[in-house]
Amino acid sequence: MLEVYEFLTISSKLAQEYTETIHFESDQVLYQYDWLKSNQFLLMKKGIAKIEIYRKRRWELETLVAAGEFAGIENLINRRLFCSNIKYRIVSVTHGEGLLIEKDYFLDHIYANPSLFHKILENVTLHHIITSYNLREKKAPLKQRLADIILELIMLTSLPIQNNQVTLPFPFSEEIIASVLRVPIHHVKEILNYMENEEIVTREHEFQVMDYNRLGKLSNLNVETFKNMHLQPLHM
Amino acid sequence: MLEVYEFLTISSKLAQEYTETIHFESDQVLYQYDWLKSNQFLLMKKGIAKIEIYRKRRWELETLVAAGEFAGIENLINRRLFCSNIKYRIVSVTHGEGLLIEKDYFLDHIYANPSLFHKILENVTLHHIITSYNLREKKAPLKQRLADIILELIMLTSLPIQNNQVTLPFPFSEEIIASVLRVPIHHVKEILNYMENEEIVTREHEFQVMDYNRLGKLSNLNVETFKNMHLQPLHM
Repeated sequence: MLEVYEFLTISSKLAQEYTETIHFESDQVLYQYDWLKSNQFLLMKKGIAKIEIYRKRRWELETLVAAGEFAGIENLINRRLFCSNIKYRIVSVTHGEGLLIEKDYFLDHIYANPSLFHKILENVTLHHIITSYNLREKKAPLKQRLADIILELIMLTSLPIQNNQVTLPFPFSEEIIASVLRVPIHHVKEILNYMENEEIVTREHEFQVMDYNRLGKLSNLNVETFKNMHLQPLHM
Repeated sequence: MLEVYEFLTISSKLAQEYTETIHFESDQVLYQYDWLKSNQFLLMKKGIAKIEIYRKRRWELETLVAAGEFAGIENLINRRLFCSNIKYRIVSVTHGEGLLIEKDYFLDHIYANPSLFHKILENVTLHHIITSYNLREKKAPLKQRLADIILELIMLTSLPIQNNQVTLPFPFSEEIIASVLRVPIHHVKEILNYMENEEIVTREHEFQVMDYNRLGKLSNLNVETFKNMHLQPLHM
């Protein structure tokens, strides 16, 4: 969705007035707000961040926002339809760059450009399909669930698959995985060890998928598709 | 979203070529397809249907489609981004009327009308927010989960709340609830009996919420919002 970024910053004067570029290091809180008061979108230009929701007195990881994606979907719906006292924050996972955009400025721009509108809709739909999948598969064995979320991440961040291998461009730690799957960390450690022994992944330097096809076999997702994606990259 | 319906049928000649009106009774299969081959949207004009996904050799209820809503979100995303061997079908819950629309006809129309595009985006976003909520709350006590899904249904179908009461316009059976929550039916029976004894709901004639505020207290959703919704109905 870097097209969206370009379109929003065509006029540098307007961009200066209604948007703000932020540069960040890892583990930095980029944005913190109550759902009700939120009036900004965050478009990620570089890097990866996570959205955390305050629930039961602690911050719970909700989802990841990759380069080219945006946060702030609450600004897409009429508050009367759904609102909530959700308190959330966006925290960087890597260093990177993002654009904070005023709600109306963002909406006016996508109203003027249906193909960008479609990209936004496509991104929300994709997240919805993945979330629905995760809800359906919630009782699946942890081995499958762990393979699922690695594959989802590869898909959402459009990571290139080369020679059946993928390198994740940020530390995909046991803590993050345990937090996404909401399971005790020792279960995650066990399965990652299994995957390393089987040479499906390695964590020697970075988190790397060594055998994408075998990882796919552990999951219920259709990995063939993700591969095709890279024949015609979409910058989503 | 009846505006969408009207916009798609402005030209009766084109509508005749690219859409098909269907009338149905309850428990009728309206549409059955593989995700990959799907090239139609279904817009519900009257009544309620359910989407079922074929999984582990049986049809599992995935979600409900209320009047004014649409099915076929797989047509909103590029197949390269996500596709799957999901087999799904749409089955009517009540009698009603719907419009089957060719994918490109639907997309061309919403491209020409950003405010309708926004309504589609709003609907997908709303479903996404609710699904994410359900995933977060998946381990919550069943009493809360049952209150949640009744409230979600009221919200998605924009049912009027009058004198703290709501009547569901279709049989919201123990089977449907057990299927949505994926729990044994006897647990659902127990909680519905509790809710009846407490005069929160009644099932004497139809499924009726007798005390909307108390139902709201069993849930983590913000019921105040849904009420406000009805001050300015949105026909979503």
